[in-house]
Amino acid sequence: MNIGVFDSGLGGLTVLKELTRAFPEYHYIYLGDTARNPYGTRSKETITQYVREAASFFFEQKNCELVIVACNTASADALRAVQQTYLPTLASPTKRILGVLIPTAEAAVAATKNKRIGIIATRGTVSSAAYLREIGKLDPKISVYQKATPLLVPLIEEGWATRPETRSILKKYLRSLKDAAIDTLILGCTHYPILEKDVRRIMGKQVQIITSAAATHGRLDDYLMRHPDLANTLSTEGGVEYFTTDDPTRFSDLGKRVFHGNMGTVHRVELA
Amino acid sequence: MNIGVFDSGLGGLTVLKELTRAFPEYHYIYLGDTARNPYGTRSKETITQYVREAASFFFEQKNCELVIVACNTASADALRAVQQTYLPTLASPTKRILGVLIPTAEAAVAATKNKRIGIIATRGTVSSAAYLREIGKLDPKISVYQKATPLLVPLIEEGWATRPETRSILKKYLRSLKDAAIDTLILGCTHYPILEKDVRRIMGKQVQIITSAAATHGRLDDYLMRHPDLANTLSTEGGVEYFTTDDPTRFSDLGKRVFHGNMGTVHRVELA
Repeated sequence: MNIGVFDSGLGGLTVLKELTRAFPEYHYIYLGDTARNPYGTRSKETITQYVREAASFFFEQKNCELVIVACNTASADALRAVQQTYLPTLASPTKRILGVLIPTAEAAVAATKNKRIGIIATRGTVSSAAYLREIGKLDPKISVYQKATPLLVPLIEEGWATRPETRSILKKYLRSLKDAAIDTLILGCTHYPILEKDVRRIMGKQVQIITSAAATHGRLDDYLMRHPDLANTLSTEGGVEYFTTDDPTRFSDLGKRVFHGNMGTVHRVELA
Repeated sequence: MNIGVFDSGLGGLTVLKELTRAFPEYHYIYLGDTARNPYGTRSKETITQYVREAASFFFEQKNCELVIVACNTASADALRAVQQTYLPTLASPTKRILGVLIPTAEAAVAATKNKRIGIIATRGTVSSAAYLREIGKLDPKISVYQKATPLLVPLIEEGWATRPETRSILKKYLRSLKDAAIDTLILGCTHYPILEKDVRRIMGKQVQIITSAAATHGRLDDYLMRHPDLANTLSTEGGVEYFTTDDPTRFSDLGKRVFHGNMGTVHRVELA
């Protein structure tokens, strides 16, 4: 049995990288819905439908027992509805979908001491207010400061991550969060770990950086410990298979160049 | 009878602005297919289908006699196929679709003296090689230098057009075209006129800047002179009606903020 990792594009590769590092024994299926990304501007109904199609691909065609939705927008908007469909049943006691949103929120809440958490994310994730909601549920006394940083994904995807212009834009984006005296910062988009070093440099050592990649790895570890039944069914052959809904060449080029993934053959798949 | 202006998003507003300035007496219908943009990453078949749906909206629902496809990607990929459908017939002698690509290429060919033309455009327009093809047909002795500048649209849409980071990125993008000693530069994306002043400053006075907005206005002028039958059927009430396939509020906010349009009510429409 395999673990599925789903993202609207390539950002989920940062999550996959953490997972394969932590659990190299499992076999992973990565699917990037690049033909229909970015999800950020789509309606909740549309995103739910996309995630439903992805879940059916993983569970019904790719022999997955566990799917990680490594996309903040999809985690925020669609996860609960799709989880309802795949509630554990007697026939299939172990089919599960995990998102990145709740583990990331939990990791931030555990990390903050002054109860001031900052978030940078795409416009879609910020306006969904999903992190505000989840953190509020965990500890309503925490103040949360959001900042939409929509230029970061195009800058990263264009290979400009380490250029001075990007550093300068990042500095301007982070100014209000520095002013808010946060002690914990969520990188609320799976692309952003690429900029983690610069973020650390700008925010200073006293600010803890929380990435979905690290939080998801922690959550999966915990989850598998509490569900040995599931852990036992997982394939121990290792390896990753990559799927995209758009041009595989563009996918593997971008994957190599930006996310330093070495992905071999990428397969094209139609979702419906 | 009205004039339709179609774009995948808001960039076509630069073309509309030129048209309403040149021909304030006509009545315009603007449609931005924001729910499905950007078109740059979609297949030719998909884009053709979108343009076909837009054409049917303009001709069948909005009483247009003339539609201007103010989108380089759509002009490059889909125009000819859709034009076939709307070839003038006896029943409707005047339904026409004009693109921005050919008028822009013609204006550049007329402007160059040293036969070296540069183009900046989205990745989609560059890899379609449509400008290379059109300029090659007009004068095969002209050397054409293309440069994909994919960060410019997000920077413009985020309101960063006049910031130093954008100037610096623009300068790096234009370096190879400066080195190629072009005397004419096509701004091959309808967003780019927003950056025209900075482009002029970087390229110097000896380089002529060609925008689709100006070229289309010139072409329409010419076209209406040669087709008095069509000119006579056009509404002379003035005014513009705006339509989008996505959230009208976001459309009018971005339109006001970035393109300085004062657009009143924006209507939502479903294309199919």
